[in-house]
Amino acid sequence: MQFVRFWDGKKVQYGILRGDKITAIEGSIYGRYETTSRVYSYHDIMLLAPCEPSKVICVGLNYRDHAEELNLPLPEEPVLFLKPPSTVIGHQQDIIYPPLSNRVDYEAELGVVIGETTHRVTPEEAWEKILGYTCANDVTARDKQPKDGQWTVAKSFDTFCPLGPVIATDIDPGNLKISLTLNGEVKQSSNTNQMIFPVNELVSYISQIMTLYPGDVLITGTPSGIGPMQPGDTVTVKIEGIGSLTNRVVAG
Amino acid sequence: MQFVRFWDGKKVQYGILRGDKITAIEGSIYGRYETTSRVYSYHDIMLLAPCEPSKVICVGLNYRDHAEELNLPLPEEPVLFLKPPSTVIGHQQDIIYPPLSNRVDYEAELGVVIGETTHRVTPEEAWEKILGYTCANDVTARDKQPKDGQWTVAKSFDTFCPLGPVIATDIDPGNLKISLTLNGEVKQSSNTNQMIFPVNELVSYISQIMTLYPGDVLITGTPSGIGPMQPGDTVTVKIEGIGSLTNRVVAG
Repeated sequence: MQFVRFWDGKKVQYGILRGDKITAIEGSIYGRYETTSRVYSYHDIMLLAPCEPSKVICVGLNYRDHAEELNLPLPEEPVLFLKPPSTVIGHQQDIIYPPLSNRVDYEAELGVVIGETTHRVTPEEAWEKILGYTCANDVTARDKQPKDGQWTVAKSFDTFCPLGPVIATDIDPGNLKISLTLNGEVKQSSNTNQMIFPVNELVSYISQIMTLYPGDVLITGTPSGIGPMQPGDTVTVKIEGIGSLTNRVVAG
Repeated sequence: MQFVRFWDGKKVQYGILRGDKITAIEGSIYGRYETTSRVYSYHDIMLLAPCEPSKVICVGLNYRDHAEELNLPLPEEPVLFLKPPSTVIGHQQDIIYPPLSNRVDYEAELGVVIGETTHRVTPEEAWEKILGYTCANDVTARDKQPKDGQWTVAKSFDTFCPLGPVIATDIDPGNLKISLTLNGEVKQSSNTNQMIFPVNELVSYISQIMTLYPGDVLITGTPSGIGPMQPGDTVTVKIEGIGSLTNRVVAG
């Protein structure tokens, strides 16, 4: 199933995407909902980020191919950082290149959308807490990311967390092709089977630290091939079973 | 004026504290509101954190006396990190000592509560965007804070951001006595005039990176004297013109 959140021209709705049709739902994608008779064409609405996270927890250095590219040893524990909710945008919304930076990078990532309140769960229990998966771009002002300092500034500019286009349920996050194209040229191409810490271990680990709530998002690290974007560029994250998340970069 | 947020036994309300009486308001403390005829005794209600931030932005190493204590050079730009909203608790709520840590520290800090949407403002404009000030305790699992790594884990455990008891408006944040007592013993005692980056410069700087929303909180660094707490301890942050924020530490 593929959940979407969208603007119909008058209000924000949630719906289920099948082909190019969206059937609106009433209720909550995190609990009970019913489908309605309201059906929209995908082309007539504006997609929004598919959820509204109270927090976005990010994992650094979680792909073997990316660690090898950087000549870094594999981490023994997940490296975590946060992006504020004010970074979140949806499919087709613009990434704003901030005046404070001269180097803004893309990072294709698998996003995990939490389905229910999650506190100190085991890796086995973690699976039940996940609603589904989305594409994410962990946009980073690389020149604001000191190697020996906090990454918060580099990762926290408005619009630096595109999410979407859908939340896909019923897919195996452990074996999905993930790629990123910049102006149509492939820059990243890997598989989520390259993850050092798999999705359920990450959810379990994070839940020992902070309670996760429905709609919270975990972005799970990027594979090799990261690089810069410029205003005017179009960037697309594509993940098997989810779809394509496309954003344009505009000068801020 | 001192705003509070509280639980009256049936619902959450906002109010204005005068002496030990709270007058409930209708409307928003960030916009229009009216006082009501509902008056409560301070002792009959449960205070909650005075706001519900979508993000808590924290400043590292912002007091001259603390930088001297650590033999660190003064930073040229503010060092920022984030605490997730799931860390926020109110006055008299318990700080949970997490099983994952063996060293949990207090850090008394002045909290700044944002009053309206704030995007790329100057230091002069920043003053108008601030609703008021509160006491904060930047609780930190020191053994989870690597010197050369991300502080997110150390700072993000549930209950690690006590805020309260009130939001005080109409005070000068540049010259306030700030102290912390642990089981009644003074551990930190300083003045906000020791800040390296004053409040309005911090709000301006952060607003270049991320849009701030009403209720968002900035915690502005801690003075010298930080140290550990144990389960069973009672910790109080006191700031001139605001009041005292007291929390007990309990084993998690």
